[in-house]
Amino acid sequence: MSILVMKFGGTSVASADLVRRAAGRAIRAKQQGHDVLVVVSARGQTTDELIELAHEITDRPDPRELDQLVSTGEQISVALMAMAIHAAGYPAISFTGGQVGLVTNSIHTKARIQSVDVDRIRDEFEKGAIVIVAGFQGVDAKRNVTTLGRGGSDTTAVALAAVLRAEVCEIYTDVSGVYTADPRVVPTARQIDRIAYDEMLELASLGAGVIHSRAVEFGKKYHIPIHVRSSMTEDPGTMIVEEVGAMEQITVRGAAMTKDLAKVTICGVPDHPGVAAHIFHEIAVTNVVVDDIIQNISRDGSTDVTFTVASGDLSAIVETAGKLVKELGARGILTDKNVSKVSVVGVGMRTHTGVAERMFRALADAKINIQMISTSEIKISCIIDRASAEKALCVVHDAFGLGEKND
Amino acid sequence: MSILVMKFGGTSVASADLVRRAAGRAIRAKQQGHDVLVVVSARGQTTDELIELAHEITDRPDPRELDQLVSTGEQISVALMAMAIHAAGYPAISFTGGQVGLVTNSIHTKARIQSVDVDRIRDEFEKGAIVIVAGFQGVDAKRNVTTLGRGGSDTTAVALAAVLRAEVCEIYTDVSGVYTADPRVVPTARQIDRIAYDEMLELASLGAGVIHSRAVEFGKKYHIPIHVRSSMTEDPGTMIVEEVGAMEQITVRGAAMTKDLAKVTICGVPDHPGVAAHIFHEIAVTNVVVDDIIQNISRDGSTDVTFTVASGDLSAIVETAGKLVKELGARGILTDKNVSKVSVVGVGMRTHTGVAERMFRALADAKINIQMISTSEIKISCIIDRASAEKALCVVHDAFGLGEKND
Repeated sequence: MSILVMKFGGTSVASADLVRRAAGRAIRAKQQGHDVLVVVSARGQTTDELIELAHEITDRPDPRELDQLVSTGEQISVALMAMAIHAAGYPAISFTGGQVGLVTNSIHTKARIQSVDVDRIRDEFEKGAIVIVAGFQGVDAKRNVTTLGRGGSDTTAVALAAVLRAEVCEIYTDVSGVYTADPRVVPTARQIDRIAYDEMLELASLGAGVIHSRAVEFGKKYHIPIHVRSSMTEDPGTMIVEEVGAMEQITVRGAAMTKDLAKVTICGVPDHPGVAAHIFHEIAVTNVVVDDIIQNISRDGSTDVTFTVASGDLSAIVETAGKLVKELGARGILTDKNVSKVSVVGVGMRTHTGVAERMFRALADAKINIQMISTSEIKISCIIDRASAEKALCVVHDAFGLGEKND
Repeated sequence: MSILVMKFGGTSVASADLVRRAAGRAIRAKQQGHDVLVVVSARGQTTDELIELAHEITDRPDPRELDQLVSTGEQISVALMAMAIHAAGYPAISFTGGQVGLVTNSIHTKARIQSVDVDRIRDEFEKGAIVIVAGFQGVDAKRNVTTLGRGGSDTTAVALAAVLRAEVCEIYTDVSGVYTADPRVVPTARQIDRIAYDEMLELASLGAGVIHSRAVEFGKKYHIPIHVRSSMTEDPGTMIVEEVGAMEQITVRGAAMTKDLAKVTICGVPDHPGVAAHIFHEIAVTNVVVDDIIQNISRDGSTDVTFTVASGDLSAIVETAGKLVKELGARGILTDKNVSKVSVVGVGMRTHTGVAERMFRALADAKINIQMISTSEIKISCIIDRASAEKALCVVHDAFGLGEKND
């Protein structure tokens, strides 16, 4: 029998009515002849409330105990979901991460899955039960409760789908799918029917937050189609799938914009081996996350190293940058806390030329100056002034005809 | 090193300040050289709130899923308690019932403990940690979460104390100990310093609700002294201990009153074998709990069977009683929904005479009519009119000088 994994996020189970609605979906899938595994997140604000309880006790809760605490959020959700399915007259059973043999390493609050023992799930499938598993959590080898960090429930769902060789992993959320760009910014943005794992990974890292990168990586690694769709409608959403040749006919799948960035340039850095490693080691110890790094060729034995960070992190980084100028004998630093990044993503870029040129032309026609450029195999990003960010996203999106149905 | 078990009830950990206060107690016990095991209940209203969530989904939640749900209440408490001890600079680790190897049978919502594997606790003691264990819960052989029913956290504490051969099991609660009678009713009531397990069992079954009978039974079976005391003061409470010869010098340890009872008499029941079994089978299937049963000798081949139930259960039982009259060919039923029971308890009764006489004399002097009498080896109970209940408790309490320090 084909296996279907359905994951419901916190907003999709935030009230008794929503739990019943999700239960109804699981039951319909069962009636259609699937074995159904449901993965559930903590309800609505539960995780935040639990973290607040911890902070009433201490500013720095022990990570092991924090996992012990917050994992109760998903345990509550799975029990309620199983009750709702029972109440509708169908067999169901809920499991915590530990009960279902989801074993992780011992890195609390951001554990990695090491193994999954799905015998218990298969036993319950054979009895005809819908199986409900708590997302986001596992246990380590000593049965300490661990949690998987941000997006952990998506990861649980895709990992279980992989081990069970599920037909598809459905991610139910409060949006209807993945869009060619943020529809709040780009009026012509359109929902994407099919997107390749690599494209989704680039878009996710650019802030298209419907599904976490780790879950997409699992899907890619184990060839699990992921269906991102709305919990409020029956409409199909976006399928995240294996790249096929036909997908390359579309050069650009989507566009994204990261609005609040700051740009830091260390000017006149002596150009010798190890300098970049030194700079970014010093920045790493400040715990600031660096977005993009750009270094062009050197002139007269020195070069300029530019990187971008979230604009809120700029002040934290300036002191370190100043220190680096002295240590390296660089000329000085330049900063700009009002930049944004606009990007286009598509696997078709690998085989099609002219993508960069079309993006730059669209920005030029709109009189938007490109301050920096960086590219990957399937992505082109431009740093621009923040005042033009929304406009830039719109003109780039429309330059590639993303608003038109073509996939 | 001597082992101390400390159990904190829900009211003793209901706020962050109270958790810190309880943590401070555990730390002081550790500083005094004990290995310390802390058992914690769900905080304040948490269990009720979780049950309410279940009832938003369904009127009849599946018992397994209800256990999965409500067990999160204690898990939250133990994590917060461990954080509070960490925050004060001491090592601590929290465990769920499952993590600490507390295995029960599979009777959800009222499971019985079958085995406890305390290796993990001993390991943590050796590392110097204070160990926090969730009360009220365990897992069955398949790692389904189970709960122990009413008073379950007390039972967890005493069971762990038994397996660890603890010096004492301290039960912290919102009262200062066990009293000779309910001090809200009897102004001269006095806290008892030491009480025998059997006396405590009789008083607990009479509604002296400071500790659950099952926990006392565990203490008795495994010879664990139980110290019932206030979480708000340093004053000693009541020690529940092995009976020793000196205890028999006190004929009566305490008095209790059960206020809201109803009395049902089936009159003229033909006196032949199996009749009582038939009557109380029919009553059992109505799920009404019978308090006392009294049957005197028969006259003219028939007898009267009287039993008491909670007065709220009377209407549920009348129909059954009427049906029994017809089936048995009895004469009819008499009911009185306004009776109460007053009792005295003491192991000294076994060896002292005159206890019953003194109790009956005290009631007679107060012009209180005794409607029914029943006794056990260490208890005498009288059924009286409810209007006299408080007065009866006071006169009986004082007739045995219970208000005077004598133990």
